[in-house]
Amino acid sequence: MEVTVSRHAHFNAAHRLHVASWSLERNTQVFGKCANPKYHGHNYELIVSVRGAVDPITGFVVDLSWLSVLINKEVEERLDHKNLNEEVAEFKTLNPTAENIAMVIWQWLQPHFNENQKLKVTLYETPRNFVEFSG
Amino acid sequence: MEVTVSRHAHFNAAHRLHVASWSLERNTQVFGKCANPKYHGHNYELIVSVRGAVDPITGFVVDLSWLSVLINKEVEERLDHKNLNEEVAEFKTLNPTAENIAMVIWQWLQPHFNENQKLKVTLYETPRNFVEFSG
Amino acid sequence: MEVTVSRHAHFNAAHRLHVASWSLERNTQVFGKCANPKYHGHNYELIVSVRGAVDPITGFVVDLSWLSVLINKEVEERLDHKNLNEEVAEFKTLNPTAENIAMVIWQWLQPHFNENQKLKVTLYETPRNFVEFSG
Amino acid sequence: MEVTVSRHAHFNAAHRLHVASWSLERNTQVFGKCANPKYHGHNYELIVSVRGAVDPITGFVVDLSWLSVLINKEVEERLDHKNLNEEVAEFKTLNPTAENIAMVIWQWLQPHFNENQKLKVTLYETPRNFVEFSG
Amino acid sequence: MEVTVSRHAHFNAAHRLHVASWSLERNTQVFGKCANPKYHGHNYELIVSVRGAVDPITGFVVDLSWLSVLINKEVEERLDHKNLNEEVAEFKTLNPTAENIAMVIWQWLQPHFNENQKLKVTLYETPRNFVEFSG
Amino acid sequence: MEVTVSRHAHFNAAHRLHVASWSLERNTQVFGKCANPKYHGHNYELIVSVRGAVDPITGFVVDLSWLSVLINKEVEERLDHKNLNEEVAEFKTLNPTAENIAMVIWQWLQPHFNENQKLKVTLYETPRNFVEFSG
Repeated sequence: MEVTVSRHAHFNAAHRLHVASWSLERNTQVFGKCANPKYHGHNYELIVSVRGAVDPITGFVVDLSWLSVLINKEVEERLDHKNLNEEVAEFKTLNPTAENIAMVIWQWLQPHFNENQKLKVTLYETPRNFVEFSG
Repeated sequence: MEVTVSRHAHFNAAHRLHVASWSLERNTQVFGKCANPKYHGHNYELIVSVRGAVDPITGFVVDLSWLSVLINKEVEERLDHKNLNEEVAEFKTLNPTAENIAMVIWQWLQPHFNENQKLKVTLYETPRNFVEFSG
Repeated sequence: MEVTVSRHAHFNAAHRLHVASWSLERNTQVFGKCANPKYHGHNYELIVSVRGAVDPITGFVVDLSWLSVLINKEVEERLDHKNLNEEVAEFKTLNPTAENIAMVIWQWLQPHFNENQKLKVTLYETPRNFVEFSG
Repeated sequence: MEVTVSRHAHFNAAHRLHVASWSLERNTQVFGKCANPKYHGHNYELIVSVRGAVDPITGFVVDLSWLSVLINKEVEERLDHKNLNEEVAEFKTLNPTAENIAMVIWQWLQPHFNENQKLKVTLYETPRNFVEFSG
Repeated sequence: MEVTVSRHAHFNAAHRLHVASWSLERNTQVFGKCANPKYHGHNYELIVSVRGAVDPITGFVVDLSWLSVLINKEVEERLDHKNLNEEVAEFKTLNPTAENIAMVIWQWLQPHFNENQKLKVTLYETPRNFVEFSG
Repeated sequence: MEVTVSRHAHFNAAHRLHVASWSLERNTQVFGKCANPKYHGHNYELIVSVRGAVDPITGFVVDLSWLSVLINKEVEERLDHKNLNEEVAEFKTLNPTAENIAMVIWQWLQPHFNENQKLKVTLYETPRNFVEFSG
């Protein structure tokens, strides 16, 4: 009997979308206003979901307090109030699209779960755009 | 590595639920107030989701600006501020339930994606009722 | 010591915006897609607020169960799943804009409150447009 | 062609998290403030989803009015404004975590659907924590 | 030039509505299911608003980090994961309606603001019921 | 008879909080992570409200389509996908706190309303922090 448990978190960050090997013209053509070299930013809303067996004693898949601390340490401390392009090693070369940010967050969190626990990351870039990644 | 990207949109429309071959009595028995021949209406909230590979250069599954324009052209121009029963060809004979509207929207959008991209349509008829269709 | 208490309710309705003495051309010029003679519709979200003294025994400004029943009887029974233009007497001649609907709802509810209770009606026509009226 | 239809409902309840065979110290160590023997409580938001074939006549997977009445009878009457630990038989011995509550709700609802209809229960304990169970 | 700044917070608590001098029958007659002697509970959502002059140097009415810590110390530590009737001194004799809780919170916070700052407390008992108090 | 009509809009922007005449140490002491010289960002949600008389013919306080275009021209074109500190003249010297941004937006919009129309700006910096300014 498997249940999925989910926890919301959030971080605010600046970023811009661009491919380093492209000219500003081409970046603007592909990424529009998101290519602004001066950056813009978002309130990212993050949902971390874990699917797994329910512990028959505690009734927990995972302890959500532990999960909340984990998200704070692995994600919020790295991304909150940061410039993703300039201050986060993973995005020095990787374009910080919502897709790529979600995959990077998943890779940071994944080692903390066992092989029977399935991790999924949902990331809202705005209330109108979001992405999901589950490995 | 596949990611799902989603985009919100919305349209306002009038409709009524009824089966053309049934009497008003039977329609009212089955569909309740939704069978009102004078129509009622909704603010439909639509989420279009595409699952696919992330382009290694752009970091996009699909360009959400393109997706937004596509939804406007294929869905909003046909349904926004319309009477679904009277003004949308598909619902002349098909009952415009949320289920059927979601399937029709999916069919309009599907030809624009390739065989490796999986399309899902989520449609909120009200903040309390919604449906999902993925082919 | 006065407190304001508020209760959410909702109704779904069809309507169109038009001035009876104007041509369809002029109505379309002023009201755009909202002038569609075949109607469109909305999920209206209603917040009814009452400001007044707190009863020292019960701790209530008004009993919210009573308020909920009142809204059902005075508002939802008249407007829910209706065509506002065709089926609601007040809007036979009055254009059913959010402004006018809110004022009509306020007039229906007002007689149920005493002179020391201040009534306010907030009406969301969509999640993005709303109006407030307090007499 | 299968569609998933979902309906929101809600109930307010008191509970505490504890394992009967553990001391208060151990319960507090594991469950933190949630182990408070005097109880705390939540506004639970419930989404019941049913995946199945769309009836070609009505355009319904299931009638949402019927589903709404079913949720009221099977879930809200048992849980709304209750103390889960003291007043709900299932939680006399089972820890009322969101995981366990979702599984109990699923078991109450499941007999009402046929073998071709897939039931899923989503339960928000707070706007920030939720669980999903689909059997 | 005055601006109003607002900060969201939240706490989960158990309570019941009752007047100590009334019988259970009368309490149930007046407060319905909310009179359950075994308690029920809510996720209370709190918005604390302060209206005042904007500091010409910092651009702040008040520092929201300071406000957040203040709400945690004055409100959340007293109410979060508590049984309001049994564990909060103010509600030993005062009925813990949303109206009364909002007024108590206002009284706890008020001494921390100066005479030129106007404090308002908005308290959601559920997503559908809320109260406002500003002194 | 006056009604208040409101329209939602939004823009995404990067900013940092700092006082130009202060050292980075002092800025960090006062503004915390928001002082990061590399910037962070937000999805700002804006509500523009206008209180005024309802036109007896149209039933409008103001035409919301006109208001929507006005917000786009006066606010979104200046702020959306911008670095507020570096690219918006008003914030070269003024600290872009939510309070100051709301007052600047109000000043941009105010000349478009007449003396009998009362303008109010509500600005959400995050879903948890917001400010209101009405002149």
